[in-house]
Amino acid sequence: MRNRRVTLINRPTDIPLPEHFSLDEVEIPALADGEFLVRNLFLSVDPAQRGWALAESNYSNPVPLGAAMRALAIGEVIASLDPEVNVGERLYGWFDWQEFCVCGRDKVLRYIDTSVVPLSGHASLLGINGMAAYLGLVQSGRPQEGDAILVSTAAGSVGSFVGQIARNLGCHPYGLTSTAEKVKVCTERYGYECAIPYSDQGWTLKLANVAQKGFNVFFDNVGGRFLDTALRQMAVGGRIVQCGTASVSSWANEPSGPRNEREILVRRLNWAGFVVFDHIAQFDHAAKVLTRWFAQGKIVYDEDICYGLEDAPSAISGLYAGSNNGKKLISLQ
Amino acid sequence: MRNRRVTLINRPTDIPLPEHFSLDEVEIPALADGEFLVRNLFLSVDPAQRGWALAESNYSNPVPLGAAMRALAIGEVIASLDPEVNVGERLYGWFDWQEFCVCGRDKVLRYIDTSVVPLSGHASLLGINGMAAYLGLVQSGRPQEGDAILVSTAAGSVGSFVGQIARNLGCHPYGLTSTAEKVKVCTERYGYECAIPYSDQGWTLKLANVAQKGFNVFFDNVGGRFLDTALRQMAVGGRIVQCGTASVSSWANEPSGPRNEREILVRRLNWAGFVVFDHIAQFDHAAKVLTRWFAQGKIVYDEDICYGLEDAPSAISGLYAGSNNGKKLISLQ
Repeated sequence: MRNRRVTLINRPTDIPLPEHFSLDEVEIPALADGEFLVRNLFLSVDPAQRGWALAESNYSNPVPLGAAMRALAIGEVIASLDPEVNVGERLYGWFDWQEFCVCGRDKVLRYIDTSVVPLSGHASLLGINGMAAYLGLVQSGRPQEGDAILVSTAAGSVGSFVGQIARNLGCHPYGLTSTAEKVKVCTERYGYECAIPYSDQGWTLKLANVAQKGFNVFFDNVGGRFLDTALRQMAVGGRIVQCGTASVSSWANEPSGPRNEREILVRRLNWAGFVVFDHIAQFDHAAKVLTRWFAQGKIVYDEDICYGLEDAPSAISGLYAGSNNGKKLISLQ
Repeated sequence: MRNRRVTLINRPTDIPLPEHFSLDEVEIPALADGEFLVRNLFLSVDPAQRGWALAESNYSNPVPLGAAMRALAIGEVIASLDPEVNVGERLYGWFDWQEFCVCGRDKVLRYIDTSVVPLSGHASLLGINGMAAYLGLVQSGRPQEGDAILVSTAAGSVGSFVGQIARNLGCHPYGLTSTAEKVKVCTERYGYECAIPYSDQGWTLKLANVAQKGFNVFFDNVGGRFLDTALRQMAVGGRIVQCGTASVSSWANEPSGPRNEREILVRRLNWAGFVVFDHIAQFDHAAKVLTRWFAQGKIVYDEDICYGLEDAPSAISGLYAGSNNGKKLISLQ
């Protein structure tokens, strides 16, 4: 049996583009004891994939050249030599950008139960996006009822959940987003009190007006000048959750910015890096809360699904251009 | 009765110099109900006074021009209209750079008991320096036994305690300090495994060699390029306690430096501002621990005492020049 894969063939220095990938076809190896064969149903497209493709290791090693692009996916077990993993079971895990994946249980992040949340929702609401939004906000942001919560990329696959979770916890979420259409979806669908488009020339002034008593939490996915500005609008004792740095296109030449240590001291900020994979032990708890909210109609998710492996190579750069509306998935069904 | 005072007469833009102060003499006002009269015995000189003298408020309002310079001091109650504050009692509090202070209980930080620690030690080991060292390290730095702890201004009035406290907690303290003599006192007296002088051209390389597996805690009193370098030597999950920013001479023109958000994310750092006055409720607990260690010979303090109000105006700039050996105090006895 043959396996079609999207492999990384050139290492990007910034955002991975179609030219960095190639489609190939290889033979699927035989299963060893304890292994099983997954057929991928939905491939996940995530901003973090940029970091995985770069030469410098960040919190994980770079994807080797010639290997299938590292990715999360939802798949179905079609053969198994692991007595605890059954054929027909559906899983969410590290199955990469390919049609099939031979792997062991170490690649599984969650076992999927579709009784409440539909299958594809397990790659967004109950995938790393929902997990990062919930665990990053609750554990690192430590929101109190009534807190003002600022979120960057507020309409994105993580930000869309942070707004709703903040609202469900009795907080007041404010968003930074790219366009007027995304402002609309932030306020009408994702629970935000208001959202400010970066494109608006007066966004820094608007942010200062919105802040009033300062933000208690800043859930930041972008870094750069947005972070610089927001940091200076934090309330005393505020928490910054650094979940991503998407606005800074390259770290190779040590980009500079205003010094922040005085602000951190005087405002008594707490600024913490958050990598969702450090918190896998809490995934079940977070999924339980998010599933209950979903059943109660208190949280929604949006998807932007395209079809076929061929669409994968351009998908990461599409995310960074903000062309997706909702979680970007590639369906292989 | 007359009161001699050191007043702030010009507002500095950077480190306060003698020209920013003047000595004057005023009549001591009569005590109102609930007030008491303190005769100052030791005036404290602290790096934080720079910030209090500047035009911008930081965590406290600027000292008004023409007023006695804000300062902590040890004093003795010589008259009282507060039934709970007795004549003869010795106090540590906000009694400012002057001979006498009329005040209420809101100005008192600690009531002094000299049965174990001598009087002047209550302005260093049991004053804000010891409190900042203990509470900053323990509460914000959250050290685990065996942790590598980096401390800047390691021989200073706070750093000298952080080294010893870290050692008492089973950690490995490493210091950054100014001169070869201070390196010696760090390792021979303050518990440091080793100390690196900033003046050493190869200090960044030496720091990298010392770090090996990275620092778990950085207790930082200086900010600036020392912080930039140390931040890039932190272990995953490391904590940065921002207790001061003494190396950056002015914040007026928004100084810049390398962006840190990527390091914070990838290393999962936790970077928190620490202002000791937020933690007054814990002072008694910290003083109890430090007093016990002092009685057991497990912590020492050093003092650099000068005599008379006339020495105060040059004392803050002396601190920033590193000319003191131990806690700088002005004795009025």
